[in-house]
Amino acid sequence: MSKRIEIFDTTLRDGSQGEGISFSVSDKLRIAECLDRFGVDHIEAGSPFSNPKDAEFFKKAEKLHLSTAKLVAFGSTVRKDIRPEDDEGLKALLAAGTKYVTVFGKAWDLHVDCILGTTLDENLCMIRSTIEFLRSKGRTVFFDAEHFFDGCKANKDYAVEVIKTAEKAGAAAVVLCDTNGGCFPDEISKLVKIAHKELHTTIGIHCHNDSGCASANTFAAVKAGCTHVQGTFTGMGERCGNAALTTIIPGLQLKLGYSIVSEERLATVSKTARFINEVANVRLPRYFPYVGSSAFAHKGGMHADGVAKEPRTFEHIDPAAVGNERKFLLSEMSGRSSVLSKMRVIDGSLTKSSSETKQITEMLKELESEGYQFEAAEASFELLARRQLGKFTPHFEIDHYRIISSMDSLDGKPYTELANAIVKVKVGDKYEITADEGEGPVNAIDKALRKALEVFYPELRRMHLTDFKVRVITSNDSTAAVTRVLIESTDGENTWTTVGASRDIINASVLALNDSIEYMLKDV
Amino acid sequence: MSKRIEIFDTTLRDGSQGEGISFSVSDKLRIAECLDRFGVDHIEAGSPFSNPKDAEFFKKAEKLHLSTAKLVAFGSTVRKDIRPEDDEGLKALLAAGTKYVTVFGKAWDLHVDCILGTTLDENLCMIRSTIEFLRSKGRTVFFDAEHFFDGCKANKDYAVEVIKTAEKAGAAAVVLCDTNGGCFPDEISKLVKIAHKELHTTIGIHCHNDSGCASANTFAAVKAGCTHVQGTFTGMGERCGNAALTTIIPGLQLKLGYSIVSEERLATVSKTARFINEVANVRLPRYFPYVGSSAFAHKGGMHADGVAKEPRTFEHIDPAAVGNERKFLLSEMSGRSSVLSKMRVIDGSLTKSSSETKQITEMLKELESEGYQFEAAEASFELLARRQLGKFTPHFEIDHYRIISSMDSLDGKPYTELANAIVKVKVGDKYEITADEGEGPVNAIDKALRKALEVFYPELRRMHLTDFKVRVITSNDSTAAVTRVLIESTDGENTWTTVGASRDIINASVLALNDSIEYMLKDV
Repeated sequence: MSKRIEIFDTTLRDGSQGEGISFSVSDKLRIAECLDRFGVDHIEAGSPFSNPKDAEFFKKAEKLHLSTAKLVAFGSTVRKDIRPEDDEGLKALLAAGTKYVTVFGKAWDLHVDCILGTTLDENLCMIRSTIEFLRSKGRTVFFDAEHFFDGCKANKDYAVEVIKTAEKAGAAAVVLCDTNGGCFPDEISKLVKIAHKELHTTIGIHCHNDSGCASANTFAAVKAGCTHVQGTFTGMGERCGNAALTTIIPGLQLKLGYSIVSEERLATVSKTARFINEVANVRLPRYFPYVGSSAFAHKGGMHADGVAKEPRTFEHIDPAAVGNERKFLLSEMSGRSSVLSKMRVIDGSLTKSSSETKQITEMLKELESEGYQFEAAEASFELLARRQLGKFTPHFEIDHYRIISSMDSLDGKPYTELANAIVKVKVGDKYEITADEGEGPVNAIDKALRKALEVFYPELRRMHLTDFKVRVITSNDSTAAVTRVLIESTDGENTWTTVGASRDIINASVLALNDSIEYMLKDV
Repeated sequence: MSKRIEIFDTTLRDGSQGEGISFSVSDKLRIAECLDRFGVDHIEAGSPFSNPKDAEFFKKAEKLHLSTAKLVAFGSTVRKDIRPEDDEGLKALLAAGTKYVTVFGKAWDLHVDCILGTTLDENLCMIRSTIEFLRSKGRTVFFDAEHFFDGCKANKDYAVEVIKTAEKAGAAAVVLCDTNGGCFPDEISKLVKIAHKELHTTIGIHCHNDSGCASANTFAAVKAGCTHVQGTFTGMGERCGNAALTTIIPGLQLKLGYSIVSEERLATVSKTARFINEVANVRLPRYFPYVGSSAFAHKGGMHADGVAKEPRTFEHIDPAAVGNERKFLLSEMSGRSSVLSKMRVIDGSLTKSSSETKQITEMLKELESEGYQFEAAEASFELLARRQLGKFTPHFEIDHYRIISSMDSLDGKPYTELANAIVKVKVGDKYEITADEGEGPVNAIDKALRKALEVFYPELRRMHLTDFKVRVITSNDSTAAVTRVLIESTDGENTWTTVGASRDIINASVLALNDSIEYMLKDV
């Protein structure tokens, strides 16, 4: 069985409606290239009329060399009482210069009346004339039947008339939209089947996640006859977001027998998702299906043991199929086999009964009772194991640091100055002492420490921190409780996380910083 | 139509299997109280055998006054070749002292063979004897049929035999689990119907989100006959997490005609979700259905206009029904009524249209954009409102502080000394300057500040901090990001929480300390 489904990505258009999402033109160009490499069929990249940045994107996009994906520009049907050739929106849509365009039109009578302020017949005319006009200009037109499902619930005959009008006018695909995201799979299934009876052209589906069912709704629509699937790659979008292609594509291909991309390309879906969210500067939720960093993370000892014996026992698919990785979380609940799987990376000859495995498992337990936690700090665990296995030579030592932090009153208002840090490091038999200031003591010591070490290791300039998390652990001793600091760092290519724990938050931060720099330097 | 569904929350048990989740005993107690206030029926709170911290929880939980929710302890069926009365796991389960217990057993033949290493018949005996034994000790037993759906796909007759065995042994509910989270709604629906034909007892559903369908699967199961729904409140859980009750409960109650909690309680679902994630120190994803901060955020100009004309056009439900708020991302509108309810405590004459209400709502928004969050810090909000309403006279001012924090090397090992703090306070026209030392800068300033103020307010000796939480908010600037500090204090009788936010963690802590002391003194 190998049924073909067309994938239409709208990260750059509908995804950019998400709160906190703002793409620059160059972000958009990078993401378009990345989506093409992954293998989506269509990339809806912007609304040239409503967003001037998007018009600029389409100009620059002419120079993009996309291997298979087609760029699509997005706009609305003609405004009422205006001829298509005079409509500014349609002019901008044509000016984008893409062969493929999407126009959306209203399929819910409430919207025709309340938002457009026109008659049901006039709305049908607007849809027809828009599609015909764009086709006369050589465009292939996708028609988004906005609110098709809510429209059906309110006035089924009219919603169906809308999609039939779009088909008759020559739409290459009629896309049924759950614009408000409030539907359930059984409703979607029933109404797609109705559309399927009425239409002969390609039928698409476009779901939002307001009921938490965007993925299931998309699967239901495909099973009911849709062969064109719209979504954003990682689920970004207005309100609760759009259907996530990272969930849809693996589900269709690995479980439901549809053919989307080659196996090799599917195995890049995790990497592609991380890249897109990195460019968008939003974190990919760790528990995201298939591609999240926790998607195959096993914490319970029994789960970890089970997966080690037979992966099927606690994994619904092979993580390698989506380019993700199994993780055994190192925690108080985990046992020796989790530790071993990590130590083997350093020394392949180790076994579950090696004395080193036992030693490190015990050391781990002890450190966790002191407040460390390695399940999200694998770089620190690797350094710990290397130290224990005698496979680690430190690149530097911190001889001492001093921090001065103060607050004054100025005209009766509190006034905080920058914190100051002095740090002295030792590299080989050389010393370097320097100082810096920062917003708070941790920022100050971070800056001073790098400044001192860059004298010896200029490659540290490529490294920067991407996340900093603080957790106070034993809450009974209040401000004297143990503080755990997690630091995520990147050199632009790889990302790693380290941990430090101490009763002193500055010291905990310095321990984590120390590890993050050592990890960066480990192959030097 | 008002069909009753039982809600079984397992945040504290299955939720704690999520990567990065680690609850202290006091976290668990707070969350249990909060879930009870919201109105779930059952709170599965831990596995006393596999986790010693959970045994401690159940001991302390005896003093909890839950109004309606029942606590549940979790464990597995008896180990093979052991009599129930000799099984350490079952002993620990009984020692938890709860009336309700859950035991899970294997419903997939692969697991019986590969994980338990026993025969299919022996597994049925283990299930039967476990349930009968626990019932003989007066327990009400829920049976989690682990892997029921995967089990059905592999060997339907056996999976069905497992659940029939559990029913016959007297399970109060048989819970069908999609443990690996790989199923789709149509599969769930079909297999629940099969179970429904075979059983007479209550049937439950327990879904994981590995296919991105946990919510849809739960809805499908309820439609097919399940009347007991398991999930974690905000979807925490192993790998991709569990079905989120924040999605399930509003969907069932607002859209599918089921009765779960009163309207008033449903309107606290957003607040409850934020509280739980705050305690767990993990961020509630902003686009989370119903309860996320973006769930009703309108960015597209047309959407915002549409909603202003007629909310139904772009909202699937009224955000107030789930205690959430509509947001227009370019021109923010506010939740004045929630502010009002808090201000009324201070001045009963205030109304929604009072200028003070508007002012404080705006101030709140501004402070939240600076990193404050008052959801879990009502004492700080009360002080803010008192200040704004002219009903507050500060009991002291911090004139200045100095902190010195240092680390040295001693015989090649890092050696951290106690941090030192100097603080000068002004009370009336008197000054007091003193110093103290502590484990880390925050502990040092906390001690010095109290020492100086106790000269004027000896009653402060009764007060101490009970919890201290740190959250780094905007993660992009790494160590220069804004830090939010939450401090919980008690005078032995009352407990209150305050908040401070700043780019400097010490300053954020001092702001929160300052509020916690002022709150203690407010009636002096």
